[in-house]
Amino acid sequence: MNKVITKKIKSFDNARSSLDETIFHNANGYIGVRGTIEEGVPAEWDTMRGMYINGFYEVIPMKQAENLCNFVDKKETMLNVCDTQTIKLNVNGHDFSLFSGKTLLNERTLDMEAGITKRNIRWQSPKGDKVGLEIKRMTSFEELSLFTIEYSVTAENFDCELVLRSLHLPEVYNYSDPNDPRLAADSEKFLHCITADIKDSVSYTVTETNVSKLKCATLVAHTISAKNSRICVSKTDDNTIIYDAVVPIKKGQTITLTKYTIITDSLRHKDPLEVGFKKIEAVLKNGIDHYYEAQKAYLSGFWSKAMMEIENDNEMSLAVNFNMYQLLQSAAKDSYGNIAAKGLSGEGYEGHYFWDTEMFMMPFFVLTNPELAKQLLKYRYQTLDKARENAQFLGHKKGALFPWRTITGVECSGYYPSGTCQYHIDGDIAYAIINYYLVTGDLDFIRDFGEEILLETARLWLDVGFFDGDRFVINMVTGPDEYTCMVNNNYYTNMVAKYNLEWAVKLFSILEEKGMTGKLKKKIKLHDAELTEMSQAAEKMYLPFDEKSGIIPQDDSFFDKPVWDLSKTPKGNFPLLLHYHPLHLYRYQVCKQADTVMAFLLFSQVMDKEIMRRTYEYYEKITTHDSSLSKCAFSVVAANLGMREKAYSYFGNSAKLDLMNLHHNTKDGIHTANMGGCYMSVVYGFAGLSITEKGLSLAPFLPDKWEGYSFKICFMGSVLLVEIDSENVKISLISGDPVEITLYDKKVKLMDKTATKSLLR
Amino acid sequence: MNKVITKKIKSFDNARSSLDETIFHNANGYIGVRGTIEEGVPAEWDTMRGMYINGFYEVIPMKQAENLCNFVDKKETMLNVCDTQTIKLNVNGHDFSLFSGKTLLNERTLDMEAGITKRNIRWQSPKGDKVGLEIKRMTSFEELSLFTIEYSVTAENFDCELVLRSLHLPEVYNYSDPNDPRLAADSEKFLHCITADIKDSVSYTVTETNVSKLKCATLVAHTISAKNSRICVSKTDDNTIIYDAVVPIKKGQTITLTKYTIITDSLRHKDPLEVGFKKIEAVLKNGIDHYYEAQKAYLSGFWSKAMMEIENDNEMSLAVNFNMYQLLQSAAKDSYGNIAAKGLSGEGYEGHYFWDTEMFMMPFFVLTNPELAKQLLKYRYQTLDKARENAQFLGHKKGALFPWRTITGVECSGYYPSGTCQYHIDGDIAYAIINYYLVTGDLDFIRDFGEEILLETARLWLDVGFFDGDRFVINMVTGPDEYTCMVNNNYYTNMVAKYNLEWAVKLFSILEEKGMTGKLKKKIKLHDAELTEMSQAAEKMYLPFDEKSGIIPQDDSFFDKPVWDLSKTPKGNFPLLLHYHPLHLYRYQVCKQADTVMAFLLFSQVMDKEIMRRTYEYYEKITTHDSSLSKCAFSVVAANLGMREKAYSYFGNSAKLDLMNLHHNTKDGIHTANMGGCYMSVVYGFAGLSITEKGLSLAPFLPDKWEGYSFKICFMGSVLLVEIDSENVKISLISGDPVEITLYDKKVKLMDKTATKSLLR
Repeated sequence: MNKVITKKIKSFDNARSSLDETIFHNANGYIGVRGTIEEGVPAEWDTMRGMYINGFYEVIPMKQAENLCNFVDKKETMLNVCDTQTIKLNVNGHDFSLFSGKTLLNERTLDMEAGITKRNIRWQSPKGDKVGLEIKRMTSFEELSLFTIEYSVTAENFDCELVLRSLHLPEVYNYSDPNDPRLAADSEKFLHCITADIKDSVSYTVTETNVSKLKCATLVAHTISAKNSRICVSKTDDNTIIYDAVVPIKKGQTITLTKYTIITDSLRHKDPLEVGFKKIEAVLKNGIDHYYEAQKAYLSGFWSKAMMEIENDNEMSLAVNFNMYQLLQSAAKDSYGNIAAKGLSGEGYEGHYFWDTEMFMMPFFVLTNPELAKQLLKYRYQTLDKARENAQFLGHKKGALFPWRTITGVECSGYYPSGTCQYHIDGDIAYAIINYYLVTGDLDFIRDFGEEILLETARLWLDVGFFDGDRFVINMVTGPDEYTCMVNNNYYTNMVAKYNLEWAVKLFSILEEKGMTGKLKKKIKLHDAELTEMSQAAEKMYLPFDEKSGIIPQDDSFFDKPVWDLSKTPKGNFPLLLHYHPLHLYRYQVCKQADTVMAFLLFSQVMDKEIMRRTYEYYEKITTHDSSLSKCAFSVVAANLGMREKAYSYFGNSAKLDLMNLHHNTKDGIHTANMGGCYMSVVYGFAGLSITEKGLSLAPFLPDKWEGYSFKICFMGSVLLVEIDSENVKISLISGDPVEITLYDKKVKLMDKTATKSLLR
Repeated sequence: MNKVITKKIKSFDNARSSLDETIFHNANGYIGVRGTIEEGVPAEWDTMRGMYINGFYEVIPMKQAENLCNFVDKKETMLNVCDTQTIKLNVNGHDFSLFSGKTLLNERTLDMEAGITKRNIRWQSPKGDKVGLEIKRMTSFEELSLFTIEYSVTAENFDCELVLRSLHLPEVYNYSDPNDPRLAADSEKFLHCITADIKDSVSYTVTETNVSKLKCATLVAHTISAKNSRICVSKTDDNTIIYDAVVPIKKGQTITLTKYTIITDSLRHKDPLEVGFKKIEAVLKNGIDHYYEAQKAYLSGFWSKAMMEIENDNEMSLAVNFNMYQLLQSAAKDSYGNIAAKGLSGEGYEGHYFWDTEMFMMPFFVLTNPELAKQLLKYRYQTLDKARENAQFLGHKKGALFPWRTITGVECSGYYPSGTCQYHIDGDIAYAIINYYLVTGDLDFIRDFGEEILLETARLWLDVGFFDGDRFVINMVTGPDEYTCMVNNNYYTNMVAKYNLEWAVKLFSILEEKGMTGKLKKKIKLHDAELTEMSQAAEKMYLPFDEKSGIIPQDDSFFDKPVWDLSKTPKGNFPLLLHYHPLHLYRYQVCKQADTVMAFLLFSQVMDKEIMRRTYEYYEKITTHDSSLSKCAFSVVAANLGMREKAYSYFGNSAKLDLMNLHHNTKDGIHTANMGGCYMSVVYGFAGLSITEKGLSLAPFLPDKWEGYSFKICFMGSVLLVEIDSENVKISLISGDPVEITLYDKKVKLMDKTATKSLLR
């Protein structure tokens, strides 16, 4: 199966360039490097020349226009930590540039099996000298601190002395765009250099933030294939370190400069520079090929579980593989970080973590890489104390409220009506924990981490909601749909809260049966009466329903509003959030994404299909999909409701969102949640996967446009291969113990053989 | 009747000092000067050394933490324009200071008939020299640009050469307090000096703002009573101009330095400096006594209409007179300005104008000074185009939405949920226009100004609301109570909207009958169908009512929330807005002020008394009165409902709010709206005044604690004196044509005689 994306770039312009900086970025969950071109672009171009560390942040002021009580007035922001991307080439007196001479070939490649990106260029200088360039980049999965550039130059028709200049810049700026609320508006120097020097041709720098007092060490070493080169490493007054190589080359010859960057930080290491030196020594000793091999091996392991193929649709296969690869690139491999809304591919949303992780990306990781899923959940556990504090800021007497957007667990949302007010984040995290348990059966995790979160979030629901007669109601919260804020009894919120409350009690009693609760009960001072109240609240949870129309209202007052006529809205006015004041949006029935549909995505198993269908059709008419999280939910639910064409159409839109730049903002970074959503469209949607207390079940169909598709999933420690073609569904136990699943409502025990059933039409 | 307030200051401390800066400020509606002491206070003291011009502003950035579409991101702020308050005295080598030597007497006086403030001090220097000081200040009602300090020094027991140093500082800063959302958080130099010079001993400066490009000219001249003084006027590098006088004085002798400040601005004058020179010349020619006389005469005219006396309660009389005097000091006399929430007494709320003017202060001006009331309404008319733009920003297709807080008519509210979202401002302004018409019968004003506002605000209601079946509903607005925001069908809002719609149509047809609508109809492109729709919306306006309890809910979902238990709230947690996140406040039934009660204040004539009573009692339990606008409304409505003791108790609290510093923040400025509300408590409350289409009616009672009270009101151009004692109500026509009013439901025609009725028990 082909996992290589190659783009021939015919007209290289600003839009193309900034988009490719995202598409061809390299990341390994620890560091991310934008795919900016080594030689740079014209100053007026819109380039985000960034290198990032997951979880590394500065605290910056976030002034409130009117600073009401306990408003958030500072935020964490992901930092551009250095620039070691620059390599300039001079050919016989002419600087290589795509803006001079003649570009004979310009190609970029992402190889998702090798785990590298590549530029292939043939260029003719104004003088007529022709060079071939192959520039490979990698962020290593084996050595997470390592970023490499292998820069090969071939002299096609000349002899000369090439001049190669490679830079190491420790003092860099974050990108900014004052016109887009989704990006930072300020560009400030958040890091200042405290060390910059050269030792045995290795340049090294240490920078520090002003407020968070975090340190970042960067080390750069070069090797060059030509032995007769003249090398000089020097430092300028502004702490830039310059590596210059003068390299004689002959016609037909190829010379290769290999640039190794090691990045370490004081979040993970007491002395990042010391650690950095050890790492660069090891790297230089091992050599680049070692890391290329390790990269391939790592990815081979990844694809062996995360595989998804669509028969005879290479483009779509490539799109879904691209999405899965990006998820892997984005996910932190330790619990200092998580998955940012844009991964490590750009500065959109300032590197913040949202509910996106739990609701859209976690299903992919739980089903293909449960260990990594656990790691991501542990991150939330590490921030539980901050969530407790956050609840207190909001006036709650007990419980924990996770922040809407954050790096370290502190709320960083500046506009609380569509930020902090999205209390469903608690239910989302709870849902992900429960789902992880249902897929893995990992009760130790529940005992040590999960149950404490479940109980503290359940406590929060008890505090924010109350028994109004026979109903448990939750007022003044915002659901995922940000076009309606601060409402009573948001359907989605109440659904996840109910589930959270139920399972907090259920898992507690499972633990209790095994005598595994003592420590926790003491730690969080849990009273039995609380558990009773949780059960009652879950049971009595009010779920709005309009008897007259048989449709579920998004919240108590949603149907009191007039319907926004989307057919009369000028095309240029989308996304609505950039063209209408929120107050105006809040006054209409119009959804950025539909909360009811999102709830169906999670709970369709327990719901009436007719109500779901009516509700789905109602909200479909008033949903703009201005959120990249919207279409995948519509796809999965359409599939669950048997609307196969619709399901496919939403999936198609969502699968290629970044590759085709469908939201016109991929230049700011990838949409990681949508990528997870795309995976869900296939697995939860087309293949009808669901995970409940009763186990894992599948009810696949084959989209009309496809001839077949297959994917692997992990369940209870075993790996299953699911293959669907126009006739059959075939499920094979690839590794692990026998497991029982449900296929089309029938129990199937997968032993060492394959179960095959006819495909349901 | 005594209108002089004298305070003997026994222990002069920081709190006392900053409070008195407000209490003893001088203002005339154009300029305001804080009562800071001439010689200054210690640097660590909390002093707001300000001089202000009504309507003079700078535009400053108001950064939004998250800048959503059409959020307000800059605001206007009132400026501290100069400092000409400083006069320093050196007695025989010792600087006069309340912090050295011995203070034998320290007294401050506000004389509301003379229109001056005064400091009387006896001080003994460390050497034993005793001086008497009398320092008079005035902002002239005759020459609005004029501020004077008359500084008299008496040598009690010594001869010497006094040294007097008087400063003129053109470059000053605004006050700031980063911890209080009601004050500006930044202190910046908004004005830079472009001219500072001396001509014939007159110092003059011109300063300019950076963004609004407004200019302010200040001119200072001195006269001194001792002919043998040595005078020197000089300028420092930082544009401070220093007037030094060395004055021989003998034991028993008094010398007087008179300091004249003229302030002009480029809002009102093309060349403010030129105008300033003309004014200072005239002032020097006329001499200070001329202005003292004119001041007395002006105030005599004011008190002849605005008089209010409470028999045998001098303290309360003084309090109500103080309030009326402050209203006069605060009100702009031209339509470049209005009345700021703190008048011209301090920088609280940044000099912004709110609904306070129309709802709380206008009744006082309409009933005692209709010309000034008209002026204030014209200010709104001048900003109508900006209100139209504001409506467009909020997504409205037609109509005008007045800003929640502003100086020039541009919305300056940084937190829209309790700012811009208070759409009732439109209804409030409409109400004030209608009320002005009902009191004056001034149809010309309606034709030229009022009706255009009424129609444009009515149009806005049609655009924000809609017919939901048989009801006209208005969603997603905030009522006056800022502890509940963004709700559907706020009772107060719907009531004023209904009235606004009704009267827009009614006055239009009155004008039409007289052929007075042609111009307006064309100007605003009014269609007859719009008038029909306005009538229908008014008729079908939905007013929430809870049948079960017989109580009016504040809005559609108010009763869905749990009741905040105020009895369990720690005393230190008031005002709640400084101790709880708004999201927490919004989740409970708790009111900063009660919207239903506010609606009763306006519309009690047309409402069922039993519903009002039940509703009043309900809201009284959940209202914190954290707004200074709350208690006066509770007072008036209690009075209307016959709860006389309660009415008096609320009045007593509200009447002395600033004089007694009951809200602990009078140091930031007076509470002008509360002062107007205090007036309403007596006239609308105790005296039962109401103004409807049927005319003016009174139904007075005498509060138990009083022996009698009297006040004057203007109605249809005539002045009436209303006197209530323990037996009778006496109403006398003081001037003007005979008018008919209603007294205790009976029509009374006031000819040239007095009508007397027995007081209703």
